[in-house]
Amino acid sequence: MNNNIFPTNGILERASKELLLGQKGICIWFTGLSGSGKTTIAIELEKQLNLKGLLTQVLDGDNIRTGINSNLGFSDEDRIENIRRIAEVTKLFVNCGIITICCFVSPTNEIRAIAKQIIGEKDFVEVFVNTPLEICEKRDVKGLYAKARKGEVKDFTGISAPFEAPLSPEMELNTANLSAVESARLIIEKLKL
Amino acid sequence: MNNNIFPTNGILERASKELLLGQKGICIWFTGLSGSGKTTIAIELEKQLNLKGLLTQVLDGDNIRTGINSNLGFSDEDRIENIRRIAEVTKLFVNCGIITICCFVSPTNEIRAIAKQIIGEKDFVEVFVNTPLEICEKRDVKGLYAKARKGEVKDFTGISAPFEAPLSPEMELNTANLSAVESARLIIEKLKL
Repeated sequence: MNNNIFPTNGILERASKELLLGQKGICIWFTGLSGSGKTTIAIELEKQLNLKGLLTQVLDGDNIRTGINSNLGFSDEDRIENIRRIAEVTKLFVNCGIITICCFVSPTNEIRAIAKQIIGEKDFVEVFVNTPLEICEKRDVKGLYAKARKGEVKDFTGISAPFEAPLSPEMELNTANLSAVESARLIIEKLKL
Repeated sequence: MNNNIFPTNGILERASKELLLGQKGICIWFTGLSGSGKTTIAIELEKQLNLKGLLTQVLDGDNIRTGINSNLGFSDEDRIENIRRIAEVTKLFVNCGIITICCFVSPTNEIRAIAKQIIGEKDFVEVFVNTPLEICEKRDVKGLYAKARKGEVKDFTGISAPFEAPLSPEMELNTANLSAVESARLIIEKLKL
């Protein structure tokens, strides 16, 4: 009989991982309209952080809606479950010491409050990517604004559903005046990364 | 108007993260009865890997069932959704270059096949923690076997639901003869970590 295996103190704590990585886990949460530049800034931010030897994880529609949330639609209930799962995944990454960059429209105070509550206030940095609707609509990278104007996409934020600007974001990026490179630099400066 | 923000090539690829970390992403999937020692070995494995400067993430009931899967029960449907979400989270971690250690009973070939299919065959290392039922039941760390014997827990693997031994696991650990420390060492050797 084996008496060698007993439960131990638990899995490696966050501090050990942060020590190993030489960085602190944090969630940088981008909120803003579709086409505002959230993922573009995230990609640039990730590139700059990587050059500094820092480990990042970008979470956005591309790797979330096609993966863990592939079985969710856009009903009110599903939108809340969508954000809940995103926040839980983010929490795991942050607890692993990783700089986790989330790019989701997350249009309401309620939705963002859910994320913040799960991830934890001290690990949640809200960044408002404040790009005017006209610019987002003009870019229309995914052709969604055109569809929304034709009524082919229901409850599309900015067109047929409201976007509530965050009440007190940690940062606000006015991308009408800032490039992605500059935006990323400002975040790194502000958060002392 | 701002023309500075355009979509770029995409988020940082896995290879860059692996280069930064000096390691390869991989999923080590422990399957075995409740009380077989999966998490105990995982904790020891993580400790040994951390000493070598390698970054790990353990996923088990403690951080999954209380987090991302907190809204799932134990119906057939929920068990499949449980494993699907676990696999999707694992895939994100593996793609971030992290050695991801999963500790789940995952009692059937079907369940493990779902995980493997999502995570990807080349990134999925199945480790069978093969501890005899009598030993697991004697340990009964969580008191679940006693409850299952009294019929208070339905479909409990090993008592009232079958455990299908994996057909061709990458490794099999007979914990009746191996300590957690030895088990972890064997895995590190075998996988050249």
